[in-house]
Amino acid sequence: MATLADIGVSAFINILSAFAFLLAFALLRIQPINDRVYFPKWYIDGGRNSPRRSGNFVTKFVNLNVKTYLTFLNWMPQAMRMSESEIINHAGLDSAVFLRIYTLGLKIFVPMTIVALLILIPVNVSSGTLFFLRKELVVSDIDKLSISNVQPKSIRFFVHIALEYLFTFWTCYLLFKEYNDVASMRLNFLASQRRRAEQFTVVVRNVPHVTGRSISDTVDQFFKTNHPDHYLFHQGVYNANKYAKLVTRRDRLQNWLDYNQLKFERQPDKRPTTKTGFLGLWGSKVDAIDYYKQQIEDLNKRLALEQQKIIKEPKSILPVAFVSFKSRWGAAVCAQTQQSKNPTLWLTNWAQEPRDVYWRNLAIPFVSLTVRKLIISLSVFALIFFYMIPIAFVQSLANLEGLEKVAPFLRPVIELKFIKSFLQGFLPGLALKIFLYILPTILMIMSKIEGHIALSILERRAAAKYYYFMLVNVFLGSIVTGTAFEQLYSFLHQSPTQFPRTIGVSIPMKATFFITYIMVDGWAGIAGEILRLKPLVIYHLKNMFLVKTERDREKAMDPGSVDFPETIPSLQLYFLLGIVYAVVTPILLPFILVFFALAYLVYRHQIINVYNQQYESAAAFWPHVHSRIIASLVISQLLLMGLLSTKEAANSTPLLVVLPVLTLSFHKYCKHRFEPAFRKYPLEEAMVKDIMDRTTEPEQDLKAYLADAYLHPIFQTFEVEEEEMAQVRAVRVDKNQSQANAPTSDTSSSSPPHQVDHPTSPPDHHTSHPTSPPQYQYPSGSPPQYTSGSTFPNY
Amino acid sequence: MATLADIGVSAFINILSAFAFLLAFALLRIQPINDRVYFPKWYIDGGRNSPRRSGNFVTKFVNLNVKTYLTFLNWMPQAMRMSESEIINHAGLDSAVFLRIYTLGLKIFVPMTIVALLILIPVNVSSGTLFFLRKELVVSDIDKLSISNVQPKSIRFFVHIALEYLFTFWTCYLLFKEYNDVASMRLNFLASQRRRAEQFTVVVRNVPHVTGRSISDTVDQFFKTNHPDHYLFHQGVYNANKYAKLVTRRDRLQNWLDYNQLKFERQPDKRPTTKTGFLGLWGSKVDAIDYYKQQIEDLNKRLALEQQKIIKEPKSILPVAFVSFKSRWGAAVCAQTQQSKNPTLWLTNWAQEPRDVYWRNLAIPFVSLTVRKLIISLSVFALIFFYMIPIAFVQSLANLEGLEKVAPFLRPVIELKFIKSFLQGFLPGLALKIFLYILPTILMIMSKIEGHIALSILERRAAAKYYYFMLVNVFLGSIVTGTAFEQLYSFLHQSPTQFPRTIGVSIPMKATFFITYIMVDGWAGIAGEILRLKPLVIYHLKNMFLVKTERDREKAMDPGSVDFPETIPSLQLYFLLGIVYAVVTPILLPFILVFFALAYLVYRHQIINVYNQQYESAAAFWPHVHSRIIASLVISQLLLMGLLSTKEAANSTPLLVVLPVLTLSFHKYCKHRFEPAFRKYPLEEAMVKDIMDRTTEPEQDLKAYLADAYLHPIFQTFEVEEEEMAQVRAVRVDKNQSQANAPTSDTSSSSPPHQVDHPTSPPDHHTSHPTSPPQYQYPSGSPPQYTSGSTFPNY
Repeated sequence: MATLADIGVSAFINILSAFAFLLAFALLRIQPINDRVYFPKWYIDGGRNSPRRSGNFVTKFVNLNVKTYLTFLNWMPQAMRMSESEIINHAGLDSAVFLRIYTLGLKIFVPMTIVALLILIPVNVSSGTLFFLRKELVVSDIDKLSISNVQPKSIRFFVHIALEYLFTFWTCYLLFKEYNDVASMRLNFLASQRRRAEQFTVVVRNVPHVTGRSISDTVDQFFKTNHPDHYLFHQGVYNANKYAKLVTRRDRLQNWLDYNQLKFERQPDKRPTTKTGFLGLWGSKVDAIDYYKQQIEDLNKRLALEQQKIIKEPKSILPVAFVSFKSRWGAAVCAQTQQSKNPTLWLTNWAQEPRDVYWRNLAIPFVSLTVRKLIISLSVFALIFFYMIPIAFVQSLANLEGLEKVAPFLRPVIELKFIKSFLQGFLPGLALKIFLYILPTILMIMSKIEGHIALSILERRAAAKYYYFMLVNVFLGSIVTGTAFEQLYSFLHQSPTQFPRTIGVSIPMKATFFITYIMVDGWAGIAGEILRLKPLVIYHLKNMFLVKTERDREKAMDPGSVDFPETIPSLQLYFLLGIVYAVVTPILLPFILVFFALAYLVYRHQIINVYNQQYESAAAFWPHVHSRIIASLVISQLLLMGLLSTKEAANSTPLLVVLPVLTLSFHKYCKHRFEPAFRKYPLEEAMVKDIMDRTTEPEQDLKAYLADAYLHPIFQTFEVEEEEMAQVRAVRVDKNQSQANAPTSDTSSSSPPHQVDHPTSPPDHHTSHPTSPPQYQYPSGSPPQYTSGSTFPNY
Repeated sequence: MATLADIGVSAFINILSAFAFLLAFALLRIQPINDRVYFPKWYIDGGRNSPRRSGNFVTKFVNLNVKTYLTFLNWMPQAMRMSESEIINHAGLDSAVFLRIYTLGLKIFVPMTIVALLILIPVNVSSGTLFFLRKELVVSDIDKLSISNVQPKSIRFFVHIALEYLFTFWTCYLLFKEYNDVASMRLNFLASQRRRAEQFTVVVRNVPHVTGRSISDTVDQFFKTNHPDHYLFHQGVYNANKYAKLVTRRDRLQNWLDYNQLKFERQPDKRPTTKTGFLGLWGSKVDAIDYYKQQIEDLNKRLALEQQKIIKEPKSILPVAFVSFKSRWGAAVCAQTQQSKNPTLWLTNWAQEPRDVYWRNLAIPFVSLTVRKLIISLSVFALIFFYMIPIAFVQSLANLEGLEKVAPFLRPVIELKFIKSFLQGFLPGLALKIFLYILPTILMIMSKIEGHIALSILERRAAAKYYYFMLVNVFLGSIVTGTAFEQLYSFLHQSPTQFPRTIGVSIPMKATFFITYIMVDGWAGIAGEILRLKPLVIYHLKNMFLVKTERDREKAMDPGSVDFPETIPSLQLYFLLGIVYAVVTPILLPFILVFFALAYLVYRHQIINVYNQQYESAAAFWPHVHSRIIASLVISQLLLMGLLSTKEAANSTPLLVVLPVLTLSFHKYCKHRFEPAFRKYPLEEAMVKDIMDRTTEPEQDLKAYLADAYLHPIFQTFEVEEEEMAQVRAVRVDKNQSQANAPTSDTSSSSPPHQVDHPTSPPDHHTSHPTSPPQYQYPSGSPPQYTSGSTFPNY
C-alpha cells in the first residue's frame, strides 16, 4: 500500500504530465496552421476566416508573435468569459447542461470536502487504532486518516453516520435544485426556439400493410380520419441503406482519386499507379487515376440503378412516416396518444430533429425489436461479466512462445534481452488495452442493433452500458479482487447482507488506488483531451494528401463533439467515488475536486472553440445523470452499512437502514415531478406557441416550410455536390412525376420524394426551396456529413 | 406425514361437508322466504317479483312443492345455460372475465394433469429410491409418487425438466390467447357501450390555486384556452366528507327509530324506552321514539348548517374537477396528454364511471400522495413480515391464567375440565383467526389511505397486498418452518442461490399439507360461499326488526358482489400451487382441478342469480391476473432449480436457467402488446364512435346529458327520500342562484351544484331530468346505496 509520499510522487508525475499537455496545447493552438484544429467551431459559425489568407508565408504557418507565448494559460479566463445563455446560443443546450454536471460536482463536493476534512480527519486520526495497536501490520498513511483507524464498537461511528445523512441530504437538495433548473431550462429552450420541423412532426412506426393500397395512402387515410382538424401531410421514408452504402464506397474512391490526382499534380513526371487487389496490396498494377475514375463511373451507374429501384419498388417504402400537423398542439396530441386498437400498430412518437434521426434503423421491422432488445441485454450482461474470458484466451496465444511459433523469423529479434522483457511486459496487456479502446464502439454497435431511431437515444443507451461496465469492472472490480465473473459467482453464493460487507470492508484499503486512478484518468486524461492529438494528426494528414480547395479543407476539419457515451459514464464514476469515499476516506475528495475544476475549464474551452454537436436533444440525458447520482448515494449507503457491520457497530448501523429508503423515495418523487418535462410536451406550451405564431405570422405556408425537412440526408447531400451527380438527383423527383426520371443537368429545381396529401397536383411550390431544409443553418450551406465521430457510419 | 389413506379420509370429510353445504343451499334456495337472499340479482334487474305476493299464507314462506326437492342439484345445469355474451349483458364484463379465470385454470390444468399423471407418476414410482433404500424412514405414500422418489443424479430428471418446459410453454400459450381475447373483449365492450358519461369526461387533479379567482373559473379558463375546440364544461367537486358522515349517523338513528316504531306498533300497550348513554347501555331512561325523533331533528339542523357551509365556503370546492368534452376524441386526447409545464399540476386521467368514484379520496391533497404511498408500502411490508409479533403478544395475554386474573369470578367455570381443554385449544388461535378475518378490511383501509380515487383501483391494490401476504405467509410460510420474519432473516443471510434450494427441497414434503388446504379452503369454502349464510341471517334479522314497507325490504336485500380483493388472490394462490407442484408432485393436480370446476359452477350461479356489481371496470384487473400467473411460473422454475441442485443433478439443472429469462421476456412482450388496451383509449376507437354518434343522433344535447353525471352521490341520494329532506336538497341549487337557498317543498325542479360554462344563464334545461343521471338504470329508480359490501364505507 502506498504511503503519503508515494501519493505525492504520483501526484507530481501526473501534475507534470498534465502540465506538459497543457503547455503543448498552449503552444500548438496559437500556430495559424492548427487554427482549424483548435477553433473549428468558429469556422462553422462563420465567425472566423482562415488566418492563412493574410500575412506573409511564414506567419501563415508559425506564430512569430512572442507576446502570445508569454500568456500561454490565457485560454482559461477566456473559457470562463462566456455566460451560460451565450453558451446555449453558441453551442446548444446539450453542451450547456453538460457543463452544469461539472459545476454540480463542484457544488456538491466543495462543501463536502471542507466538512469531511475538518470533522472526519480529527475523528479518525485521534482514535488511533492503527497508530498504536497494529504497528506490525503494513498500514498506509492514508489509512490512518480513514475510517479504518477508528476502533471497533467506537461511538465515533455516529459521527460518520451523521455525516452520511448530512451528505445525502445535501446532495439530494442540490440534485433537486439542479433538476428543477435543468427542466425549466429545457422548457425555456424549447419555448424560445424558432419554428422548427420537429415541433410539428411525429414519427409513426409500424404502419400496417393494407393490401391493394400504398403505405402513403394508408397513412393519409388514417390521419385524415383520426386527426381531421390537424393533419397536414406526411413524408414517407425510403429504405436507402443499400444506396447509402454505395455512396460511402464512392466517397472513399473519390478520396483515393483526389489523393492520386494531387500526387500527380505535384510530380507531373510520374503518373501514380495502384494495384487492383485488396487495399491495393496485390494484384496487377494499373494507372491509379484512370482506375479510380473508372471505378467511380461504375459505381455511379450502380447508384443510378439503385435509385431507380428505390423509386419503383413499393418495398423500398418503409412502414414508417413522418407525419406533420398544422399546429404544435396537433403534433403534441398525436405524439402522446395511442392511435390504434392494436397497440403495436401506428406507434407515434415525437420526431427527433432531422439531424438526430438515425435513418438506418428506421428499416428495422418493429416486430424484431423485442427480440433484439433481449439479445442485446443478454450480450451486455455477458460482456460485463465474461469479457475477461476471450481476452485471457487471446493473451494466452499472444505470448512470446506463440509469437515465435507463428513467426519463426522473428526469433533472433525476440531473443534479445531488452526486447524480450519489453514484449513480456507489453503483450499480455495489449489485448486488454485494445479491448478497452474499442469498447465504446462495441457498445454503440450493440445499441444500434437494439434498433433505436435517434442518435441521441443511441448515445444514451451506449452510455448506460458503459456505465454498468465501469461500475462492475472498474469500481467493484478494483475493490474486490478477482474477475467480474468471480464476483458474480460470489454474489450469487453469498447472502445479500454479506456482499456489502465483503466490499465495504475492502473500500478503505483501495483509496490509494482510486487516488492514483483519478490522477491518471482524470487529471492527465482531461489535459490530453484539450490537446486533441488525434484530430490534429488526421487534419494535417488530410491537409497534406487530399485537400485541393478551401472547401476540401473545410471537409478535412473535424470539430468532433462531446463524446457523451464515454464522458458521462466516467463522470458518473467520479461522482460515485466521491460519494462513497466522502465518509470513508475523505482525503480522496480534494483529488476529485481538482478533476471537476480542471475538466470544467477544459470542456468549457472545447465547447466554445471546438466541438460542433451533431444534434440537439435539449438535455434529454439529464434524467440519467440524476438517477445515477442517486444510485451512487444508495451504493455508498449500503457499503457504509456493510463496512460498519464489520466494525461491530451494531447499535449504530440500524440507523442507516432508513437512508436508502428515503433516498429512493426522493428519487421517485423527482422522477414524478420532473421527468415528464423530458419525455412529453405539455399542451399548454404548444398552444401558447401556436397562438403566438398565428398572431405574428398569420399567413405562413407551413406545408412549404416542412416539405423537405425529413428527407433522408443521402438525398440532401447531393444538392451541394458537383454537376456530375445530377443523375442521382432524379431520385428526389416526386414519385408521381417519375415518368420524367432523368433530369440530367438541371440543377436548380428538383423535388424530393416526399408524399404530399394532394398527389395529383404538381409540387410546384417546392421549387423555391429545393435544397436543404430551411430551418437548419448548415455551415457554409452544406449539411453535416456524418463523418466526424465514430458513432455514425459514413454513408 | 399423511398416508394416502389419511388423504382419503380428509377428502371424504371435506367432500361430505361440501355436500352438506350444497344440500342446505338446495333446500334453502327454493323457500320463497329466502328468495331475496338467493335471487337478488333478478329483483334488481326488475325481472322478478316477490313470490310472497301470490299464493296462500304458508306457501308464502315455505316451499311445499315436493317435485322441486327431488332435483336439488338442478342449479348446476341452470348456471351453465347462459352464454358468455348473455352474462356480459346481465352482469357486466368484470364478472364474465372473472369467470374466465376459472376456465383458464381448467384449460391450463386439465391437459397438464393428464400429461403429468401419465408420464411423471411412472417415472417417479419406478425409480423407487424410497421404496427400497429408505424403508426405515417415515415416508408418506404421496412422496413415492413425487420427485423425491427419484434417485439423486438420475437422468430421469431430464423428464422433469422437459415437462417444466412443456408446461411453461403451454401456460404461456394459453395466457397469450387469453390476454388477446380479454383485451379484444374489453375493446368490444367499450365500443358497444351506449353513450356514457365517462367516455366524455376526464378527471383533473391538482388544479392550481390562482389568487383572486375561483377554482371553477381557473378550470374554465385553462381548458377554453388549451382545448378550445373540444371543451364542453366541467363539474366541480365539493368536499362533502363531513356532510356524508352526518348523513350516515342520521341513517343509523333512522334505523333505530324504525325499529322502535315497529316495536310499538306490535305492542301498542308499551312504549319502548332507551338509555341515552353509549350504545343505549347506560344513562337515563327516556322514551325511545321521542328521543330518536329529537336526535334526528337535531341532526337535520346540523345537516342544513353543513350544507350552507359547503355552498358558501370556497374552501369546500376541491382542486379537482370532472371536465367534459364535446367528443370522445377530445376526452381521449386530454386524458392521455400532459397539460401543463409543471407535470404535477393539471393532472388528467380518465374519469371512472360515476359509480366507481371513491369520493372521499378526492379531498386528499395531491402533494401528500407520495408520502402516503411510501408509508403504506412500509406498513404492508411490516404487516407481511411482522404480523406474528402483536398476535403472539395478544396470545400470551389471552391464556387461561390471564383470563382468570382479569375475571376471577369465571374461575369455577374455567376450572371445569372439558371447558378448560376446549378453551386451551381455542383461545391461542382466536387472535390469529380474528386477525385473518379482518385482514382484507385492514388491507382495504391501507389502500384507501394510499389515496386512490376509484373503487376498482382500491380493490386491485388491496388484492395485490393480499396476494403478497398469501405468497409469503401461506405458500412460503407453510413450506419453510418458522415465521415470515424468520424467513426474511434467513433470506437476507442466505445466498440468493441457497434460498430456492432451502425451499425447493421442502416442497415435495408439503404436498399433503397443500392437498388438505385445497380441500378445506377450496372445496368446502366454495360450497360455503353458495350458501350465503351471513347475508341470509342478516336479511332475516332486518326483515324482522326494520322492514315496514316493500321498499324497506328492497333495502334490506344485500346482493353483494364478487369480492375481488379476496377471491382473486386466493385464485392466484391455486394457480401457484398447481404450477409449482405440476412437476414435483403431480398427484396434487386433480384436487386443484376439482376446485376450479366447482368454483366455476358456484361463481357462475352466484353471478347470474345473486351478485350485483357496484361498478364496471371492463376487466381492468386482467393484467394483474396475467402477471401473477407469470410470477407463479418463474417461482416454480426457480424452486425446481433449487430442488434439482440438491438432487445433485448438476448436468441437467443449467438447462433450466434459460426458462425464467424466456418467461420474463414473454411477459414483457405481452405487457407491451396488450396492456395499453387496459390503460389507454385509442383515438381510432374514439373517432369511430364519435362519427357514429354524429350520424345517428346529430342533434344530441350532450351538455344536458352530462350535466349531473358526476354529482357526489350524497346529493343524489336525497332525491329519492321523502319530503322531510327537502331542505337539504337546497344544496343542489346552483351556487349562482344560492340567494334563493331554501326551496322547502318543491320536489320537481332542483338543480345540482355543478359548474356550467355559462354561469349567468339559469340552468333551466336541467328541469326535465332533475334526479339521477340518465345513463344508469338504477334498480327501482334508486341509485346504489353503497351499503352492500364491506369495501365501501356507509356514508
